[in-house]
Amino acid sequence: MNYKLMGRFIARIILMEALFLLPALFISLGYREWNAVHGFLLTVAIALALGVPMYLFCRKTDLRFGVREGMVCVSLSWLIMSLLGALPFYFSGAIPRYIDAFFETASGFSTTGASILSDVEALPKGMLYWRSFTHWVGGMGVLVFALAFSSGEEGAGFTMHLLRAESPGPDVGKLVPKMKQTAKILYIIYIVLTVINVIFLLWGGLSLLDSLCLGFGTAGTGGFGVRNDSFASYSPYIQNVTTVFMLLFGINFSCYFLLLMGQFKNIFKDGELRLYLGIFAGAALLIGLNTFQRNFNGDFWEALRHSAFQVSSLLTTTGYSTVDFDAWHSFSKGILLVLMMVGACAGSTGGGFKVARVMIIFKNLRRNIRQVVNPRKVMAIRNNGKVMDEKVITNTNAYFAAYILITVIVALVIGLDGQTVETNLSAVIACINNIGPGFHAVGPMCNYSIYSDFSTALLGLVMLVGRLEIFPFLILFSRSTWKRK
Amino acid sequence: MNYKLMGRFIARIILMEALFLLPALFISLGYREWNAVHGFLLTVAIALALGVPMYLFCRKTDLRFGVREGMVCVSLSWLIMSLLGALPFYFSGAIPRYIDAFFETASGFSTTGASILSDVEALPKGMLYWRSFTHWVGGMGVLVFALAFSSGEEGAGFTMHLLRAESPGPDVGKLVPKMKQTAKILYIIYIVLTVINVIFLLWGGLSLLDSLCLGFGTAGTGGFGVRNDSFASYSPYIQNVTTVFMLLFGINFSCYFLLLMGQFKNIFKDGELRLYLGIFAGAALLIGLNTFQRNFNGDFWEALRHSAFQVSSLLTTTGYSTVDFDAWHSFSKGILLVLMMVGACAGSTGGGFKVARVMIIFKNLRRNIRQVVNPRKVMAIRNNGKVMDEKVITNTNAYFAAYILITVIVALVIGLDGQTVETNLSAVIACINNIGPGFHAVGPMCNYSIYSDFSTALLGLVMLVGRLEIFPFLILFSRSTWKRK
Repeated sequence: MNYKLMGRFIARIILMEALFLLPALFISLGYREWNAVHGFLLTVAIALALGVPMYLFCRKTDLRFGVREGMVCVSLSWLIMSLLGALPFYFSGAIPRYIDAFFETASGFSTTGASILSDVEALPKGMLYWRSFTHWVGGMGVLVFALAFSSGEEGAGFTMHLLRAESPGPDVGKLVPKMKQTAKILYIIYIVLTVINVIFLLWGGLSLLDSLCLGFGTAGTGGFGVRNDSFASYSPYIQNVTTVFMLLFGINFSCYFLLLMGQFKNIFKDGELRLYLGIFAGAALLIGLNTFQRNFNGDFWEALRHSAFQVSSLLTTTGYSTVDFDAWHSFSKGILLVLMMVGACAGSTGGGFKVARVMIIFKNLRRNIRQVVNPRKVMAIRNNGKVMDEKVITNTNAYFAAYILITVIVALVIGLDGQTVETNLSAVIACINNIGPGFHAVGPMCNYSIYSDFSTALLGLVMLVGRLEIFPFLILFSRSTWKRK
Repeated sequence: MNYKLMGRFIARIILMEALFLLPALFISLGYREWNAVHGFLLTVAIALALGVPMYLFCRKTDLRFGVREGMVCVSLSWLIMSLLGALPFYFSGAIPRYIDAFFETASGFSTTGASILSDVEALPKGMLYWRSFTHWVGGMGVLVFALAFSSGEEGAGFTMHLLRAESPGPDVGKLVPKMKQTAKILYIIYIVLTVINVIFLLWGGLSLLDSLCLGFGTAGTGGFGVRNDSFASYSPYIQNVTTVFMLLFGINFSCYFLLLMGQFKNIFKDGELRLYLGIFAGAALLIGLNTFQRNFNGDFWEALRHSAFQVSSLLTTTGYSTVDFDAWHSFSKGILLVLMMVGACAGSTGGGFKVARVMIIFKNLRRNIRQVVNPRKVMAIRNNGKVMDEKVITNTNAYFAAYILITVIVALVIGLDGQTVETNLSAVIACINNIGPGFHAVGPMCNYSIYSDFSTALLGLVMLVGRLEIFPFLILFSRSTWKRK
């Protein structure tokens, strides 16, 4: 392991976080929120005190860098960022207990949007901004950001291994031959889409700060809002705009790149995109039909509007809500639970298992059934006309196993707190898939303050594990990671 | 497809079922239960009217027989047996609605033990016997029975493909070179163990009929009892005997064969057996600790006794209960839910995902994590010192996917009836794993009569799908199965 290079990179991440804190600091200065200002200043000071010596100490090193280093680097960076990013909440007194502040920040960076706060509106403006900004930078990836906008003396292998570890989906594609260039293109598309979203929100009459916060939450498919009732009290216009943009941010960003290149045909050849849009339309329609008599006084279009919002929100793992969907019929709740697990497209800012992986699992299953009948025939799995690497399939299967195992084990452990099985299971599903609200005691109108300190910390960790797609954390616990080669 | 050979075999299964009905008929005659006698007689007549002409028509055929034929034969046989075996309940009026009778019989043959009856004690004695006997013959397999004790002119390929399709577990081992001989040995061990169990129950003061019924339920890891409170009102001796025997029937029967051969060392080399016993001991201890203060007035040994019974019952997918475990703390309920999914050993009469498959999934996951670190190293997965065939691993992964998918989809569909998500999920888990009781509205003190006709029929089918381990049924829906070669 090349510890020095890892140290240098982590030091850069810490310093970058100090930079990210400055806009929040200025907002709090502008609103004269002195407690918040104190919290931000103290955190920036700590970040500098940690980051600068660490960078100087690790500056001189060789540039050997492999998969191991990439994965360990990514998981440690995210953990440190969350631990550090929690400090302003704690120092300012906005969240009195550090473990809760860690939960809130991990929820932010991982774009989960689960909260332990019962009164969001009481937060200082600067804190609200910081809370939502963590969604934005967590959505596309902090390391991707660092790599896209830096001098980058580390070389191509370094960039690739880090990007692979941080980017969601079973297989990371390059848009252009250079990884660094790819990262830059992704972030530019991301910024442009976010700005368009914010303009739409401003047009609907929201203040600049509210528009920014909600835009960040939508772009990162996070789910932190600025009001206690999430999206329930906004106008239908604001709700519909958000339905559309959540859906847009759940699409693989390489589709937008193809759009820019004018390759319209290739976009709709993408099996994942078609399945994703199909799931959205089908689920919205089914839930609309299931709820319009029961919950919307027979008004089908109103039901469809709310159903589309909820489906878009949970499929993309954002977690905003316009109504208390926990009170819906269990058929609708069942569909929502499935959507929560399916998640968005690979290569988007959304979490979950990813539509692409669901496709691979299905195709592999179909192949196995056919192979029972024709044992001697060699069959390949195709995606968008190309034969898929068997390694990707094996990895997807292993990922599926790890995903189910972690969900079950964590649900079991937090069961010690005595909540119902449904609450615990939906809490873990909501956290590992980076959604936010679950059902029952962690439903959209509730929050996670019901859990013990231990469970809160564990769920915070599970969000990060889910955001980085498990393996970067799992390899921390493998002996072979720490062996000298 | 060799339809004639399949037809001949299915005809034999139908005639065998008529034979199986005779003891129940005689019991009802002895107790002068005329309605039941009428029901049994009518069913036997129908079976003969169907089976004899079918056998005669299909008698002359060539003996080509492949995997496809084996799988289709097995799934159709089990479906027909359940449809036919439900008739006595319906004709006698013991279960007034045919769909409920089908559910009860599918539950019997698949060794699930889920019931739609609220008053079991009101059933005629002959019906009680028939209900429990379906467990016994379903546990080791109907086709295995037919193959073990028949003239068997069909040849080795025929026997092997049928046994493969009906036997549980990722990989079917032969005990002796001839498959037919293997089937015979398995059934003899099964009969001997059942007789010992019945003797122990007689010793505890139960009547012969009750001992037989409970022995059948234990041997097949079924779960139908003869009292409304399952095992709650039996003496601790009866309860403890059943704890032990449920555990014994959940062990791979090849271990007993090794025992008979005197190869004691090889038995405990078996990784699956050690893991199975470890899971039993660990879970019983954890639940004992979790419940003894809350539910047993601080009496740890009493808690451990009930916890061991429940763990043995749910791990082996039997489904008997001594207490209302649905009222336990959610940590204990969570553990029980996990046990329900894990299931018993491969090659036992128990259902579930099977301990052997859990091991394969874990080992494959560990290999994948290691491979991330050492991408070029080729690693094999070993079991009991032998390198495992990669095909078994791929199949296990596909099985896992199919298992989770079916569970989720069926839970969604029965959600239309409006029960809670927890009830629906635990109902499907209880059915596909052949357990019986779930949680909440399908808890150990409740029954499945809450569901609509459609859901009842679907759950009945899911039990058979689970008993035959999914693929024999899935293959019915694959185009390539029905294609001419």
